[in-house]
Amino acid sequence: MLNLDLMFYPKSIALVGASSDKKKLGSIVLKNIIDSGFRGEIFPLNLTATTISGLKTYKDYADLPSIPDLALIAIPAKFVLEVLEKIIQKGTKNVVIFSAGFKEAGSEGLALEQKLLEIIKKNSIDASTKINVLGPNCLGFVNNLYPVNVTFGQPVNKKGNLRFISQSGAIASSVFDWAEYNEIGFSEFITLGNKTDLNENNILKYCYDNDITSQTQEKGTSGLVPIGMYLESIIDGKEFINISKKISAKNPLFLLKPGKSNESKKAMQSHTGSIAGEDYVLDVALKKAGIIRCDGIEDFFDLAKVFAWEKIPKGRNIAIVSNAGGPAVLSSDFVASEGLQLVRFDEETRNELEMYLPRAASIFNPVDVLGDALAERYESAIKTLIIDDDVHSLMIILTPQVMTQIEKTAEMIGRLSFEYGKPIICSFIGGSHIAKGEKVLNKFKIPSFRYPERAVKAIAKMSQWGEYRDTLNINSENQNLEVDSGFSEVLLQQNTTDRKNMDSFEVNQILKTHGINTSPTAKCVNIDAAKLFVQENNFPVVLKISSPQMLHKSDEGGVIVGIDSVEKLEEAFGSLQKIILNMDKSGLNTIQIQKQVAKGLELIIGSKKDMVFGNILMFGAGGVLANLIEDRNLGLIPLSKTEIITLIKNSKVNKLIEGYRGEKGYDSEKIVDLILKFQNMIASNPKISEADINPVILNDDGIWAVDGKMILI
Amino acid sequence: MLNLDLMFYPKSIALVGASSDKKKLGSIVLKNIIDSGFRGEIFPLNLTATTISGLKTYKDYADLPSIPDLALIAIPAKFVLEVLEKIIQKGTKNVVIFSAGFKEAGSEGLALEQKLLEIIKKNSIDASTKINVLGPNCLGFVNNLYPVNVTFGQPVNKKGNLRFISQSGAIASSVFDWAEYNEIGFSEFITLGNKTDLNENNILKYCYDNDITSQTQEKGTSGLVPIGMYLESIIDGKEFINISKKISAKNPLFLLKPGKSNESKKAMQSHTGSIAGEDYVLDVALKKAGIIRCDGIEDFFDLAKVFAWEKIPKGRNIAIVSNAGGPAVLSSDFVASEGLQLVRFDEETRNELEMYLPRAASIFNPVDVLGDALAERYESAIKTLIIDDDVHSLMIILTPQVMTQIEKTAEMIGRLSFEYGKPIICSFIGGSHIAKGEKVLNKFKIPSFRYPERAVKAIAKMSQWGEYRDTLNINSENQNLEVDSGFSEVLLQQNTTDRKNMDSFEVNQILKTHGINTSPTAKCVNIDAAKLFVQENNFPVVLKISSPQMLHKSDEGGVIVGIDSVEKLEEAFGSLQKIILNMDKSGLNTIQIQKQVAKGLELIIGSKKDMVFGNILMFGAGGVLANLIEDRNLGLIPLSKTEIITLIKNSKVNKLIEGYRGEKGYDSEKIVDLILKFQNMIASNPKISEADINPVILNDDGIWAVDGKMILI
Repeated sequence: MLNLDLMFYPKSIALVGASSDKKKLGSIVLKNIIDSGFRGEIFPLNLTATTISGLKTYKDYADLPSIPDLALIAIPAKFVLEVLEKIIQKGTKNVVIFSAGFKEAGSEGLALEQKLLEIIKKNSIDASTKINVLGPNCLGFVNNLYPVNVTFGQPVNKKGNLRFISQSGAIASSVFDWAEYNEIGFSEFITLGNKTDLNENNILKYCYDNDITSQTQEKGTSGLVPIGMYLESIIDGKEFINISKKISAKNPLFLLKPGKSNESKKAMQSHTGSIAGEDYVLDVALKKAGIIRCDGIEDFFDLAKVFAWEKIPKGRNIAIVSNAGGPAVLSSDFVASEGLQLVRFDEETRNELEMYLPRAASIFNPVDVLGDALAERYESAIKTLIIDDDVHSLMIILTPQVMTQIEKTAEMIGRLSFEYGKPIICSFIGGSHIAKGEKVLNKFKIPSFRYPERAVKAIAKMSQWGEYRDTLNINSENQNLEVDSGFSEVLLQQNTTDRKNMDSFEVNQILKTHGINTSPTAKCVNIDAAKLFVQENNFPVVLKISSPQMLHKSDEGGVIVGIDSVEKLEEAFGSLQKIILNMDKSGLNTIQIQKQVAKGLELIIGSKKDMVFGNILMFGAGGVLANLIEDRNLGLIPLSKTEIITLIKNSKVNKLIEGYRGEKGYDSEKIVDLILKFQNMIASNPKISEADINPVILNDDGIWAVDGKMILI
Repeated sequence: MLNLDLMFYPKSIALVGASSDKKKLGSIVLKNIIDSGFRGEIFPLNLTATTISGLKTYKDYADLPSIPDLALIAIPAKFVLEVLEKIIQKGTKNVVIFSAGFKEAGSEGLALEQKLLEIIKKNSIDASTKINVLGPNCLGFVNNLYPVNVTFGQPVNKKGNLRFISQSGAIASSVFDWAEYNEIGFSEFITLGNKTDLNENNILKYCYDNDITSQTQEKGTSGLVPIGMYLESIIDGKEFINISKKISAKNPLFLLKPGKSNESKKAMQSHTGSIAGEDYVLDVALKKAGIIRCDGIEDFFDLAKVFAWEKIPKGRNIAIVSNAGGPAVLSSDFVASEGLQLVRFDEETRNELEMYLPRAASIFNPVDVLGDALAERYESAIKTLIIDDDVHSLMIILTPQVMTQIEKTAEMIGRLSFEYGKPIICSFIGGSHIAKGEKVLNKFKIPSFRYPERAVKAIAKMSQWGEYRDTLNINSENQNLEVDSGFSEVLLQQNTTDRKNMDSFEVNQILKTHGINTSPTAKCVNIDAAKLFVQENNFPVVLKISSPQMLHKSDEGGVIVGIDSVEKLEEAFGSLQKIILNMDKSGLNTIQIQKQVAKGLELIIGSKKDMVFGNILMFGAGGVLANLIEDRNLGLIPLSKTEIITLIKNSKVNKLIEGYRGEKGYDSEKIVDLILKFQNMIASNPKISEADINPVILNDDGIWAVDGKMILI
């Protein structure tokens, strides 16, 4: 287990590359350390100067009078390794490398970074000798709780309850600038850079182990310690989920991560050299870990503000108070599309609103206090709603009309928020005038957004996180899988000396090994073998080409169904033989016969190994429907039985399973059972890279794996 | 035809309710008129004062020394009608009523508004006597080209190329405040209020007739006169589409309209009393009219800025230049999801970028000029791309890093934009620091957004409008429909004395009348009639209950298919008779027999009358698929043949029509023909409110309307 306490709470810091040239990195970092109010010792290292900023400098790390807890490296990349060795020799264990010019800068840089990693590994033999390196190519970190600021960038010394982890230094610069403007404070702000050694999981673990709640709660804040993350890659998906789950059970985690499109994946490779997993898998994983994903930078900033300042709503019921009908109505659209609910006020609430508001006002939700509303009228409405238990959050819309008391209204909202503590989010819509109201709201730590849709979206994501948290706290279902004996592992090994694709006959055998129902089948060397099969199993049968080369048999004419006579059997056999003659002569292409399964509901069950998060399970409509209705429902293996049932329930094909428009339904228990067996097969055979059964046919006789494919690593 | 010239370019204005009390409406309006630089005569009317703001006042409208071109009413609602009569008597034809307290304020107000409308109508006998009334319950208008500002609100006297039409005064207040902050100017800004007389179509017509392009183009602007609209209802959908099409062929029209959700529809009713049509129909109509729909207030503001300031990109190719990898990569995600393309630079462009940029920079799109880029390095990259013909628009991302020259870079971008005129949109990401750069960009009329996703979205919507414009200019296909003789009109009349639902037998007859292929059918009073039908038409047949009460026959067991023997026929007939016995004794419920159509592709074709836009056609997958794949493809009747072909091509079921995964396809010409006949039937029978044929079966024999339903107005 890592101990990063001396990294983030150092008693002494050495800065290699300290400088008095104000444009240089080593000068900016030094200034930030001093300005942050750091109370420990600072050792600047510089080859020529004797003092910098009034501090005695040193030429060589070996000459330092004591062992610094933390060393900062702010010199060109080519000198970094040599200095690092000296730092380690001296006994310093925590290092931040600001220098760029490593793997992000092409092949030479990559080689340098590999050497850097070797040095770290070589010297980290056990927990007691472990060297912790942040970066290279990072912006450093800030710990306002201590305080210490070892960044090169704008100072961000305002203390607050937000934690930030950013892989990118540039995003960090923008967040700093945004935070200053919005009067937002941080506890820690840590940039990761190239993540040669320390990565997001180490930092998350550090955050989890260090509960800073009691140190960070000012009046008006959320009572939480939210963590915002900007990541371009995730190093170890399983570890990431594990640690995130623990954090999410108590504090919000929200993530901005590019990579939805192929374009961005390409751009990311040239930018950080990191290879990302599939993006759709990420969404499944984040949900499991209770992490809110941001849709863009705006979302990221918005969530930072609301999670820092507002309590999590108890539910999805929202009440809107507005001095303008138009924006209130628009907001109602977003309330619906974001999955929130406009509370229906009970009679008591309506009566009270009626008492205080003019006749033309709307006492239904959204409440329209009318264009001439002064702060007092707003107050009557808000006071009524803030004590209504059905109202889980309040959104206050203000447009700057002639009579509107912008600052006075903001002040009043602030007071009520302090007094009652119910989540309130504002949308003061406009520009120059409403900015004055925003300033007042900031003072009371009430988030305000210039567009009501942003406010609604922020509330929706808060509520979503609230639900994640509750699920994580309730759901302690044991998810340990019983792993099969290695029988099909053996089978796989026998067959995979030189190829990755299983043929359909082999897949059939492997499925059977794991208890999955398949239809009787055999390989036929000739037509007589096929006839013999029919004698034992009767018509109708299916003939298909079993070949590791042919993954899409149906599309290539390699499957003939509905064979119900000897004549048809002979004809079908002949036509498949012709296709095989045109294929290569590997001898791997044979004809497979199979008892035809009676019609039923066609499903697909598959899996794919994701490089970051491991095996992903897919379930949905099979056969012709599969592509038409795009019914892809994903989960991370292993899924609990409850999760499998939910997966089925949320699929489009579930309508057919439950019985569609008066037609009879199907037994979903059988599907659950098949998925459990299938994921067991995947989990116990790490060599399977991709597998699917398509179609699975569910009929009155049972559930049948009719055809499948499998690709090994 | 209306003439609104004297409304918007009055030589003299009377203000009823002028006041010297600064808090009163009549004082604010007067101040705005004077401050706007209006050079004509002003007649304030007030019952007590002799002068206001140095102007002589009058007690009675009749006493005015001349006939004002424009009268403004700023007195309580209950006095409005009386004053209006006097205004009309005097000879003034253009009136703005600011006063609230009409239909938005309950039943008394509604009665008042109806009387108001009567007065207007009574006095508007022909074009020469027509009274034009804006409002009531409106904020007035601004015409900065003249200039004149008759609003009560913040002054917005900055001249520019934007036109605004807003139904809501509150939204207008927010736009004013936003515009001031963003240094945006307007030509006209017109608020509609309750639209008792003048509505959006009148104002759009006025805008179309008054080409103000030459008066409004400052250096750096788009060369266009965009019109932004905030509407809560649309009065006459067909007229709205007609006039919008004409405008969109030259200038961008963009619309913000609530009403996507049921919640907002309810809220809107209590807010404006207007009843809106179906929202999904609006999207179809807007596309036809070339209008860009805004997704929210943010979108509305963003589009106002880009349409005012930037030229329309020639196509969807975008190039991104950034000093930060992270936001560039994130933007790539949005480029993909918004339907834009990251240009692939050719060798020449890449070589040039390579020459000017450091080795670690990315010379692929997005171009990363690196975190230490000064203005000069940005300039080299932008200059290379701005002359590349493959680049249709440029997006410049800036994060405020330590070395970044925020204002100098903005200045440089401004100069290049002036010089080359190619669309450039910026995203300076941050807060306090980057705000200084935004100020510089505003000077050059370059839109900048704090979040790159907003910039991408704005460019995408500009490109979309460019495509609408091009389509409108090319597409002059004649859409005149040949209307049938009224035969089925007669049929409808005969059958609809007291009911609205046609039974399936009647629908069958009506479809046949319009040349639509149906299967042979008959009503059977008894089993013998059914047997006789079979003798003539052979098995298999379908029996169904033909009843105006039973619109979902299949769900209620009212259809029995696959009858292929006399025994089955008898059994089926008996079971339907049982159902009928339990229905009411109206005698309208009978058993219908129909020759069963062979299996094929099942489709649905339907229509529904929208209260705003008229008849809407719907096409998609029919039968069981219908609800599963949610394949609803809509068009406004009449559709041209080209539009019908596109509708089919864009449907989900088109995969099956074209032949899915090796299966044979179907003849789509037959579908086009059927849709033409169907829409002809709808267009020539105005009494049809809803109709659908489901399923339509397309097989080797032809295309068949198998079952249908029809509801009359």
